[in-house]
Amino acid sequence: MIILGSTGSIGVNTLIVAKKYGLDIEVLVAGKNIELLNSQIKEFKPKKVVISSKEDLHKVNHTNVRYGEDAILEAIENSSSNIVVNALVGFLGLKPTLKAIECKKKLCLANKESLVVAGKFIDKTNLRAIDSEHFGLWYLLNDKKISSMTITASGGSFRDYPLETLKNVSIKEALNHPNWEMGDKITIDSATMTNKIFELIEAAWLFDTKNIDAIIEPKSIIHALINFKDGSSTAHIAGVSMQLPIAYAIMDKIEDEILKQVDLLGIGSLEFKTIDENRYPIWSKKSEVLENLDLGLILNASNEVAVSKFLSGKIGFLDISKINLDAIDRFSNLKAQNIDDVFLINKEIRGYYGY
Amino acid sequence: MIILGSTGSIGVNTLIVAKKYGLDIEVLVAGKNIELLNSQIKEFKPKKVVISSKEDLHKVNHTNVRYGEDAILEAIENSSSNIVVNALVGFLGLKPTLKAIECKKKLCLANKESLVVAGKFIDKTNLRAIDSEHFGLWYLLNDKKISSMTITASGGSFRDYPLETLKNVSIKEALNHPNWEMGDKITIDSATMTNKIFELIEAAWLFDTKNIDAIIEPKSIIHALINFKDGSSTAHIAGVSMQLPIAYAIMDKIEDEILKQVDLLGIGSLEFKTIDENRYPIWSKKSEVLENLDLGLILNASNEVAVSKFLSGKIGFLDISKINLDAIDRFSNLKAQNIDDVFLINKEIRGYYGY
Repeated sequence: MIILGSTGSIGVNTLIVAKKYGLDIEVLVAGKNIELLNSQIKEFKPKKVVISSKEDLHKVNHTNVRYGEDAILEAIENSSSNIVVNALVGFLGLKPTLKAIECKKKLCLANKESLVVAGKFIDKTNLRAIDSEHFGLWYLLNDKKISSMTITASGGSFRDYPLETLKNVSIKEALNHPNWEMGDKITIDSATMTNKIFELIEAAWLFDTKNIDAIIEPKSIIHALINFKDGSSTAHIAGVSMQLPIAYAIMDKIEDEILKQVDLLGIGSLEFKTIDENRYPIWSKKSEVLENLDLGLILNASNEVAVSKFLSGKIGFLDISKINLDAIDRFSNLKAQNIDDVFLINKEIRGYYGY
Repeated sequence: MIILGSTGSIGVNTLIVAKKYGLDIEVLVAGKNIELLNSQIKEFKPKKVVISSKEDLHKVNHTNVRYGEDAILEAIENSSSNIVVNALVGFLGLKPTLKAIECKKKLCLANKESLVVAGKFIDKTNLRAIDSEHFGLWYLLNDKKISSMTITASGGSFRDYPLETLKNVSIKEALNHPNWEMGDKITIDSATMTNKIFELIEAAWLFDTKNIDAIIEPKSIIHALINFKDGSSTAHIAGVSMQLPIAYAIMDKIEDEILKQVDLLGIGSLEFKTIDENRYPIWSKKSEVLENLDLGLILNASNEVAVSKFLSGKIGFLDISKINLDAIDRFSNLKAQNIDDVFLINKEIRGYYGY
C-alpha cells in the first residue's frame, strides 16, 4: 500500500497495523522527520519514498527518493498497490485524494479536509474514513431505521481552563491534548472545536445526513452514537487509539484483537457535556455550516492560515476563532461549481487572510 | 395474541404496544387485580379470560372466563393466535412456556424463570426474550467476532444502604426500586442481585455463551454491551421502559418511535461499579452457576420460597441470600435429566425450605 504521511501519528499506527497483517508497503510519503522515515525505510523496505523538501533529499537512506507534490501524485499514479492511506494534513491532502480516486484505489482517508473542502466532488464509493468517530458510526450502522447520529468531542486542551484565561494561553498549552496524541494542526483544531465542525461536515458527506450533532465526552471512550427512530441509541466504545479505525479501513473485516477492551469498571464514570459557544465560538456556526456544506472550503482555508499564524506566535488563541467566524460571514456566498473552483477559492481565502 | 399476566407491568406495557399496532387480543390471563382486568376487557375485548382464583370468577365482566393453570394451558392450545406473551412470575410460567412451544406459537418470554430452570429442555428457535438486557444484546448482535457480553444491573433497592443496615430493612424499603417499576418478586430479586444471576443464565441459553458478566450502571440507561475480539464494545442505550423490548419481541422490526430518545446531556453522567459480593452474597456463586446451569433450577426454587417468606414477614432480607447460598451448596449435584425431573426437583427443593 501507499502511505501518505508515514511519520505522523496516523502513519505510525498504519505501519503497526501493516506489520500485524504482513502488508507490503510500496510507497512512503513523509515530511520533515527524516530520522523516523529512515527507520521506517529500514524496517518496511518501500520501493519508493517521497518527502516534502529538496534540501532533505541527501539525508534519506533510499535509492529511489523524490520530493514535492507532483512526486506524490506520480507515485500514486504509477503504483501497483490498490490501497492509499492519506494521512496528510490540510488542504494539500486534496490532490492526492483526487488522484487516488481517479486511479481507482481504495482510499483510506485520514485527511478529513478532502471531504470538508470538496465533499460534493468526491466519489465516496471506495472511500473509508479513518476518524474514530466516523469509524464508530460505520461500525454501528445496520438496517434499523436511523433518526440521527451523534459524535463525541473530548473538548480539547482548554476544556477546563477558565474562559477569561483563553486569551493568553501559550502554544505549548494549546498543543497539550488531554486524550489523543496527534499532530499540531489537529490538536489546535480540537482546542477550538473546529475539528468537530469538520467532522460534522465529513459525516454529512459520508452518511448523507444533516441529522448529526456532537457532544463532549471528556474521556474519548464513546466515539459515536447512532440514534434510532424506535428510541434506542447504540454507542461505539473503544480505547484511545487510531489502530482500530485504521485496521478496519484497510482490512474491511477484523477477527483479531487490535486493541485491549475498554475496562468500564476501571474507567468508573463517563460524563456528557454540551459544547459551549462561549468556549468554542465556532460552534455558533454549526447549523449554518451543516445547511451550507460549501462553507467547509471557506472555513478550512481561513483556519489553515489562522492556525499557522497562531503556531508561529503571530496571533493569540482566540484570534483563530475570530478569523474563522469572519471568514464564514464574509464569504458565505462563495460556492465552488467544480473542482477547479475549489483550488481557486482556497487560494483566494488564504490570500485574504495573509498567505 | 395471548397475554399471560396482563395486569402486571409487562402485561400493561404489552397492551400499550398492541394498541399502537392494532393487534388483536385473543386471551387475557391475570391474577388478582380484577379491577384492572375488567378495564382491559372493556378496551381490548378478548375472546377468553383466565384468572387464578375461583372465588374471583363472579367479579370478572366477561362471558367466557375460567380459572387456574389448566385453563391457561387449554387457552393456549385452543387459540388461533400465533403469539404468546408469557409475563407470568416464577416457576409457574414454565408449563405455559412449554405449551406455547409445543403449539408452535412465537413465544415472547418475560418469564425468565422458564430458561433459568429448564433452559436445556427449551427449544429457543421461536423465542424472543423480553428483558431489557437481552433485548440490548440481540439489538447489538451482528456478524463481527464477539469476545464476550456484559449486561448491566441497577444495583436494586439497597445499593446505597450501609451494609450493616441490610439486616433490618423493611419489606416496603425492599420494594422501592430506584429505576424500574416492576412486580414485587423481581424487585426483591433485583435487590439481592439474584435477578442478575438469572439473567446471566438466561443469556447463556439465549446466546450460547458463558462469556457473559454484569456490572452496575445505576441509571439503567445502558442495558447491555457486546465486546468484540477487535477491542471495540458496542452499547445499547434506551430509556427505562419495557415497551421497546416488547415491541421488538412482538413485531420483529420497528420503524416507529416507541420511546423518546435518551438525552445524554440531560443525564449528564454515567457510572460503572463492580457488583460487590458483600452487598450481594449470591454474586459469589456467579462462576459456579455459569459453569453448571443446572443450578438455575435449584436457585429458582429456593429463591421463590425465600422471597415469599420475606414478603410475608417471616424472614429478614439477608436470610434470602442465606437460603439461596445454602441451596446451591446443598443441591449442586441435582441435575434434571428430562423435563419431568424439573418439576420433581422444583417440588423437592421447595419442600426442603418450607413450601
